Amino acid sequence: MPFCGSRVTRSCYQKLLSLVLVVTLLAAAFLPLVPAEAAATAKNVIILVGDGMGASHTTLARWYKGGPLALDEMVSGAVRTYSAESLITDSAPAATAFATGYKSNDKFIGIAAASVTVPGAASLNAGDQYRPLATVLEGAKLLGKATGLIATSNLQHATPAAFSSHWHSRSNYEEIGKQQVYEQLDVALGGGKKYLLPKEQGGTRKDGLNLLDELKNMGYTIVSNTQELLQTKASKVWGLFADDAMAYDFDRDPAKEPSLAQMTRKAIEILSQDPDGFFLFVEGSEIDWASHANDPVGVISETLAFDAAVKEALDFAKKDGQTLVVAFTDHGNGGMSIGNKASDNTYSKLSFEQVIEPLRKARLTGQGVEARLNAGRSNVVEVMAKYYGITDLTEEEIAAIRKAKPGSLNYVIGPMISKRAYIGWTTNGHTGEDVFLYSYGPGKLTGTVENAEIGRKVAAAMGLDLTWLNKELFIPVRQAFKDAAITWDNSNPNLPKVIIERGGKRAELPVGTNLMRINGQKHYLPGVIVYSEPKGVTYIPRAATQLLN
Amino acid sequence: MPFCGSRVTRSCYQKLLSLVLVVTLLAAAFLPLVPAEAAATAKNVIILVGDGMGASHTTLARWYKGGPLALDEMVSGAVRTYSAESLITDSAPAATAFATGYKSNDKFIGIAAASVTVPGAASLNAGDQYRPLATVLEGAKLLGKATGLIATSNLQHATPAAFSSHWHSRSNYEEIGKQQVYEQLDVALGGGKKYLLPKEQGGTRKDGLNLLDELKNMGYTIVSNTQELLQTKASKVWGLFADDAMAYDFDRDPAKEPSLAQMTRKAIEILSQDPDGFFLFVEGSEIDWASHANDPVGVISETLAFDAAVKEALDFAKKDGQTLVVAFTDHGNGGMSIGNKASDNTYSKLSFEQVIEPLRKARLTGQGVEARLNAGRSNVVEVMAKYYGITDLTEEEIAAIRKAKPGSLNYVIGPMISKRAYIGWTTNGHTGEDVFLYSYGPGKLTGTVENAEIGRKVAAAMGLDLTWLNKELFIPVRQAFKDAAITWDNSNPNLPKVIIERGGKRAELPVGTNLMRINGQKHYLPGVIVYSEPKGVTYIPRAATQLLN
Repeated sequence: MPFCGSRVTRSCYQKLLSLVLVVTLLAAAFLPLVPAEAAATAKNVIILVGDGMGASHTTLARWYKGGPLALDEMVSGAVRTYSAESLITDSAPAATAFATGYKSNDKFIGIAAASVTVPGAASLNAGDQYRPLATVLEGAKLLGKATGLIATSNLQHATPAAFSSHWHSRSNYEEIGKQQVYEQLDVALGGGKKYLLPKEQGGTRKDGLNLLDELKNMGYTIVSNTQELLQTKASKVWGLFADDAMAYDFDRDPAKEPSLAQMTRKAIEILSQDPDGFFLFVEGSEIDWASHANDPVGVISETLAFDAAVKEALDFAKKDGQTLVVAFTDHGNGGMSIGNKASDNTYSKLSFEQVIEPLRKARLTGQGVEARLNAGRSNVVEVMAKYYGITDLTEEEIAAIRKAKPGSLNYVIGPMISKRAYIGWTTNGHTGEDVFLYSYGPGKLTGTVENAEIGRKVAAAMGLDLTWLNKELFIPVRQAFKDAAITWDNSNPNLPKVIIERGGKRAELPVGTNLMRINGQKHYLPGVIVYSEPKGVTYIPRAATQLLN
Repeated sequence: MPFCGSRVTRSCYQKLLSLVLVVTLLAAAFLPLVPAEAAATAKNVIILVGDGMGASHTTLARWYKGGPLALDEMVSGAVRTYSAESLITDSAPAATAFATGYKSNDKFIGIAAASVTVPGAASLNAGDQYRPLATVLEGAKLLGKATGLIATSNLQHATPAAFSSHWHSRSNYEEIGKQQVYEQLDVALGGGKKYLLPKEQGGTRKDGLNLLDELKNMGYTIVSNTQELLQTKASKVWGLFADDAMAYDFDRDPAKEPSLAQMTRKAIEILSQDPDGFFLFVEGSEIDWASHANDPVGVISETLAFDAAVKEALDFAKKDGQTLVVAFTDHGNGGMSIGNKASDNTYSKLSFEQVIEPLRKARLTGQGVEARLNAGRSNVVEVMAKYYGITDLTEEEIAAIRKAKPGSLNYVIGPMISKRAYIGWTTNGHTGEDVFLYSYGPGKLTGTVENAEIGRKVAAAMGLDLTWLNKELFIPVRQAFKDAAITWDNSNPNLPKVIIERGGKRAELPVGTNLMRINGQKHYLPGVIVYSEPKGVTYIPRAATQLLN
């Protein structure tokens, strides 16, 4: 102890304490700008989220299928799902936790929490509130890996969004969609075409951007049906198979829309060509929607479709030997149970047939059957007999189906078939129980983990230091260019730009893209430029500072 | 290939085939009478069952506690819970599966299924229907290990019963209680004193047996309160702390009744003296009962008490290094969810306080509070304010509490507090979802396992061959003594005996005991004599045949 010699006096103790304090402050101020020498254990990572897929969901789907799920052999632990502010999370803060390693707030997509109120949820520094948080997908890209994103919802939906964009409101599909395009993923497959097109071309965008054209300009092949997807030999592919969400698997036209398993297989085929490895995110998005509707047929449809995608990932990982596969759900939904009030006293004699036969008679989900009703809904009895095998509809049930709001028939039919199959539900919302963790391969996750821990562990498996990553990708622009003139160009209010002028150079950085035009010459940054609206701060990748030198 | 030389002809192939057939038949006929040379990986095994403890139960209990559960670090897989005939099991067939390695039928305790109807449930040979199935506890005893049984219910209740007795109806507490006494466990702790005493001594037994006296005669120390348990130095202990079930933990008088953790710690202290190791079964019995009542306070009370017992087991296993700890639930119950209809649209902002504060105000379970009501139940408002912190009871709620049937107040109060804490329920019965598997130590169980597989894997961890064990413990008496005169002595119809006469020797074997009196001299058999009533067959341990030689 050089400060103290052999005796510890009060004075030398205080000196030591001061030193510790100084070292601590220095460490905080100068965090490493290079990744820690973390040993990568996995060359490839595939994360699969079955949105809203609780334990009853997988159990019911397995009975319906009549054989084991791919997930079964992968069960390895439990996930705690709560958000920074609620014992029950919504998809946005959950996916932010998986993607970035930090729990967040409701509606936040890849953005740090503003308020942490649940005891035990790790708190961020005050200055970090609302800042963008780098994701494991973005980190994989910086490590030179190929990246892919798949969902059956529109790709701009909360869960895929949180891996590939940053905004404090999940409903801003325009901003999210733009960032995703400029994330320069190698593969993106799912729904949501209309959010990439301007209004005048059948889209929703108010900023006038045609992001499909932009993708083509960047060298992407765009596919829009199953055959095009399966046949493409391209290495950079966007597949948009629906204007908004893709169909439930049971209702899907297999020529128009590929299955989640087909998308997953194709993505792996493309991404695995990268010698540096790849990161792929896959979401079975609509298990959640069927659960909100309390529709067990939709639950089965989507859970089995998800499990088939898991099988693709698992099969690849088994052959490859260098791939970490992690699957889980973000939260429970619906409080679904096998067993309900009708089985209060008879549950111990509830046969396989009593539960599964009514479900197997249903050939479409509650949503899928809606399209079979005629305009006046005079054919309710025939449709329900033909597609659901239900021939004992009560007058009340027929009336309820007739007056169901368009697009909400699953909320009406779901409970009807649930009743006949002894399926119980407690809510149309999410639920807060721990859920199963499934994993396989190098860096396999075990035990009870926080949702945010999954993000951190996946990063560690890739040898990725998230602290380094955040400093690489998100520096406040005024901090990055202290000696430059920084202005905003709001001439197109839907497409604002940051203007940086220094030493005769003029750089334009359109917010939400990874573009940097220096004196008119286009450069691609390694990450997107993110404006945190609540903070009023724009964040840019560190590489931008080097480009302007 | 000695039959064929270097060329395989049709004739030599057929010879070979015949030989294979003969060898196969011989193998089937003469199964080994000694255990297979299975390598034991665990010296000690502790199985802990939290009856009816689903994922929402542990999650809610953890929030209430405000810190991790002992179970958390042990999550290692999933358990499929269905019985041989139902997608939703009751405790009896579930515990039979855990204890014996075979799924069974409703109400069966350590007895083989009569009917296997669920697809995928392994079927037994027709001749094996209704036969007693040897349990891992009985097997541990044959391996020379000390054995213990703990429950907070009466010890004769289904789950502890299935590890330590054999009857086709779980409600026959007289038969189950008798067999348990003669299983010669080293430690048995729980409730159920009245089922061991004759009617004239305040008990329920119609056969006139005073099994407490019998235990004393066999050298047991009987303890009946916490202090007596904690202070005993005996190596063979029965502790009976209640006439029937013990109290819920929150309602418990700690001087009268020990906690589940105290019982577990003491049992481990006693059993771990055995140089051959030990097998201990522990049940948190009443999580299930609170769930049937939809009483979240009871659920929390019992889940935390169970987890504290798990901690005792885990702490010992960590120090010991040779102990396999396996914990799980037998089935879901109640379809409980964190989140209910009231949080349909607000779940993503459901604060910790909204859920946990109403629950923390409750100082007793729904059952515990019943004793605080006066005879006329005129003090409902005061009692609910004092013990539940509920000051906004509606007139309807007050009326419902007033008219609740005695012993069922938890069914009335449970839903009231659930509503205030955003807790949902779908049923008063069990549910069919996969549940968490928790394990630690040598032979740790992982992945998705059938409930019956747990029994087989625990046996394997002890180096125990269940096929051998069944042949050691349960031979039909007429098969065991083909050349003897076998008669029934029904002179006391409540205590029938098998009489075997051969070569001048006369043996009396009282059914349900492990006693064999040969010409008046008492011998103890290594297992109990079991009468299968539906089959009309009595089974005896193989050792009985040697004693009569």
